[in-house]
Amino acid sequence: MLKDGNLFLLYSERGDTYLLTFKDGSSFSTNLGNLIFEKGLTYGDTLLSNKGAKFYVLKPSNFDLIKKVQRKTTILYPKDIGYMFMSTGIGSGSIVAEVGSGSGALTTALAITVGESGKVYSFERREEHQKYAIKNIKKYGLEKIVEFILKDVADEGFGDYTFEALFVDVPEPWEIVEHAKKVIIPGYFWVSLSPNFEQVKKTHFKLIETGFFVERTVELFEREILVREYGVRPSERMISHTGFLTIARNLND
Amino acid sequence: MLKDGNLFLLYSERGDTYLLTFKDGSSFSTNLGNLIFEKGLTYGDTLLSNKGAKFYVLKPSNFDLIKKVQRKTTILYPKDIGYMFMSTGIGSGSIVAEVGSGSGALTTALAITVGESGKVYSFERREEHQKYAIKNIKKYGLEKIVEFILKDVADEGFGDYTFEALFVDVPEPWEIVEHAKKVIIPGYFWVSLSPNFEQVKKTHFKLIETGFFVERTVELFEREILVREYGVRPSERMISHTGFLTIARNLND
Amino acid sequence: MLKDGNLFLLYSERGDTYLLTFKDGSSFSTNLGNLIFEKGLTYGDTLLSNKGAKFYVLKPSNFDLIKKVQRKTTILYPKDIGYMFMSTGIGSGSIVAEVGSGSGALTTALAITVGESGKVYSFERREEHQKYAIKNIKKYGLEKIVEFILKDVADEGFGDYTFEALFVDVPEPWEIVEHAKKVIIPGYFWVSLSPNFEQVKKTHFKLIETGFFVERTVELFEREILVREYGVRPSERMISHTGFLTIARNLND
Amino acid sequence: MLKDGNLFLLYSERGDTYLLTFKDGSSFSTNLGNLIFEKGLTYGDTLLSNKGAKFYVLKPSNFDLIKKVQRKTTILYPKDIGYMFMSTGIGSGSIVAEVGSGSGALTTALAITVGESGKVYSFERREEHQKYAIKNIKKYGLEKIVEFILKDVADEGFGDYTFEALFVDVPEPWEIVEHAKKVIIPGYFWVSLSPNFEQVKKTHFKLIETGFFVERTVELFEREILVREYGVRPSERMISHTGFLTIARNLND
Repeated sequence: MLKDGNLFLLYSERGDTYLLTFKDGSSFSTNLGNLIFEKGLTYGDTLLSNKGAKFYVLKPSNFDLIKKVQRKTTILYPKDIGYMFMSTGIGSGSIVAEVGSGSGALTTALAITVGESGKVYSFERREEHQKYAIKNIKKYGLEKIVEFILKDVADEGFGDYTFEALFVDVPEPWEIVEHAKKVIIPGYFWVSLSPNFEQVKKTHFKLIETGFFVERTVELFEREILVREYGVRPSERMISHTGFLTIARNLND
Repeated sequence: MLKDGNLFLLYSERGDTYLLTFKDGSSFSTNLGNLIFEKGLTYGDTLLSNKGAKFYVLKPSNFDLIKKVQRKTTILYPKDIGYMFMSTGIGSGSIVAEVGSGSGALTTALAITVGESGKVYSFERREEHQKYAIKNIKKYGLEKIVEFILKDVADEGFGDYTFEALFVDVPEPWEIVEHAKKVIIPGYFWVSLSPNFEQVKKTHFKLIETGFFVERTVELFEREILVREYGVRPSERMISHTGFLTIARNLND
Repeated sequence: MLKDGNLFLLYSERGDTYLLTFKDGSSFSTNLGNLIFEKGLTYGDTLLSNKGAKFYVLKPSNFDLIKKVQRKTTILYPKDIGYMFMSTGIGSGSIVAEVGSGSGALTTALAITVGESGKVYSFERREEHQKYAIKNIKKYGLEKIVEFILKDVADEGFGDYTFEALFVDVPEPWEIVEHAKKVIIPGYFWVSLSPNFEQVKKTHFKLIETGFFVERTVELFEREILVREYGVRPSERMISHTGFLTIARNLND
Repeated sequence: MLKDGNLFLLYSERGDTYLLTFKDGSSFSTNLGNLIFEKGLTYGDTLLSNKGAKFYVLKPSNFDLIKKVQRKTTILYPKDIGYMFMSTGIGSGSIVAEVGSGSGALTTALAITVGESGKVYSFERREEHQKYAIKNIKKYGLEKIVEFILKDVADEGFGDYTFEALFVDVPEPWEIVEHAKKVIIPGYFWVSLSPNFEQVKKTHFKLIETGFFVERTVELFEREILVREYGVRPSERMISHTGFLTIARNLND
């Protein structure tokens, strides 16, 4: 049973989604009619709007939280975040970092994964972005797990830290490489994401020159399959590019 | 510094990888020559074989552990596992289940993600598969997190459990659906993976008929990018199909 | 130098395209301003609108003609048509057929390829579609090469013809297979395009049962690459599905 | 009925293909047994080897001819060639050129498409490659349509020609651009294929600088679909990269 302050995902029969915070007696209006949320509402419930449209009350997935961060920046996609996590050893209890905080999408996924026995250090140089990320992380109740640091890492470095994995989502990843060398535990993970091939190339060679082992660069595609009684087929359109992911490991000199 | 019994990934300059258990003074032979592992060896070290070839000593990623499970069955790919995790709310502390255990590849990734504050229930009907999965999980030191259950879920159901997410990797997912209805917390997650479109269709309609909300079915592609000084280009060959992923949520009646 | 009645492609600096028929002194208005086309205009010319926008006067490609047919139906994509032609032996002088005419997009490409020493038979059962196809073919000056036949081939068969290749773009290709058996020269080509898996499967087995050799079914993806001084990357969105192409050969009994 | 000297494609029940020249009474041996080809053999026939294996006698497609050129070089793929043709206005009667001849794969497809009312000029600077291309074109009976020119176009230019389309498959397409400017009819087509991003970028800007209009750069993927009674699914592996295609048009100064 949802309590005041619990997050839930509202999914309309048409496929619209809303990430909402439960409050007993609150109302919500959509193109498909109005809804009232009352005590006793539970994940898995189906509601009818005053216009008779169906709405499902669901547990938000990482995917939902990521998509619904309030944003100032483009966000990372779940397909990429999932792959980034699998390409490192991170899980419950890991100590990880990201540059920059963006809107907090990756931060959210990291915090859920490492949990309260782990820690996420989130570096960002622009105050307005950091604000959004902090707001989102608080909304999701993950603020104990994340430490936000306002800093231009390219200029000033990270400071006195060690990380099991560093996730880099800035336009010039190569400016971070030498600083990263000092804070990633040897044998552990660098992951960067860049949209352009020039960025990939420059980062790749900077990593090698600085004493990293570059494992691979990949891109991921996601295609939806439409399932209908009269015929199953792939969707006609898809996101065909978000970025290239580069995975590397720090080496001892 | 590695201790006896620690796992490490050995990565040759040619790209061959070996998942090994450290033992002081042990030796290892490859096509590129022989190596001896001695006290003081640390993640991030570079070793030279007696033939002069370079080898890197690295922290195994989830990806590495998954690829290196000893197997009797085809395994899930990291791109798919990562997406499955993002499509659910799982992270540190989650209570999850899988049918079947396979060779323990997904089990491994689940256990790392949920950690010791979480739990993974792994159902399998064939004893010989279960044995492999158990062996792999023990090798990886994750046995406290996973409970293995030998059972034909299609026939007998799950028993008295509740899960935040159920991962289904069997040839006939539709036979699991009615049993799943009773153990997935309402609003929470069903994820199945099937190679053929007929399986997707049959599972999709069985889920709807049984009172699930089907969110989407997707397929993921992974393409490597080759980075060389003289030219960057996509790799000429790729894995183009592993399976279709279907994500659904349990609903209250 | 363009003469009255010549087709040309007008390409704006913003990427809008118009397929126009030249007439000395005619004017044309766009969002980017007005243009006047005067005697002496030649393929390759750059024009300026009264608002100062650049427009290029270009020779229409097959691609342009296909995209610009006036349409009642969805059209085939150049990536698919090009592959269909390569998968058969057709070229200058070939005798080929299609079911149905659609809006004349494939008809156009076929007519340009086989030329006046070849012949295209275009079968269509709905008069209104045929009208569009005829209109487009006339506009392109290809009417000598194409014979349009109003007929429900599934019901009545083709009649007394022989073809080197038959291109099938109807919702139920399997209804054409037995008729096709009689008109495709043995050893020669069947090509069908269907959006759904179920259509592919039904057509495949009907072809085998009827004495065809099925070579393969494929799908093609086309992704644009954006080239900018500051960075080259794939386009963020793409058409991810048009249809599956099935290639088969007629066999002697 | 096949006559001495006719080409045919032999397709084994296992999927092996052979491009053969018919000669009455000739024999052929394969892993699946021996075959004898006798008078009366016709496209569409099914033969049995002495070991009982089935073989189909088929009309070679463009695709088959392209795949079966005797080669010294990597060849263009049908998916790319088909798209190149659709992206230009070529068909029966067109006057076109290519640099370089390679093994004659593209040359073959061009010659079939333009036919005897058209012309293909094939420029190549290495004599040994040209020899292969000539041999293949003769084997296919297309030698009247193709003129082979031994010349380093990058150094010496094309000479006194005009083309409706120029197809460029050399490592440094930008070296051809200024020469191409003089021989492509204004408004008509440049098509180049390059495997690396850097080549695409350099060619793109050289084309613009030289007074071409660059329409687009694309890449094409081809994925096979496996159709079996018990399940239809995409093939597990595919060719994921051959090259990027750049389409441009010559402009008047």
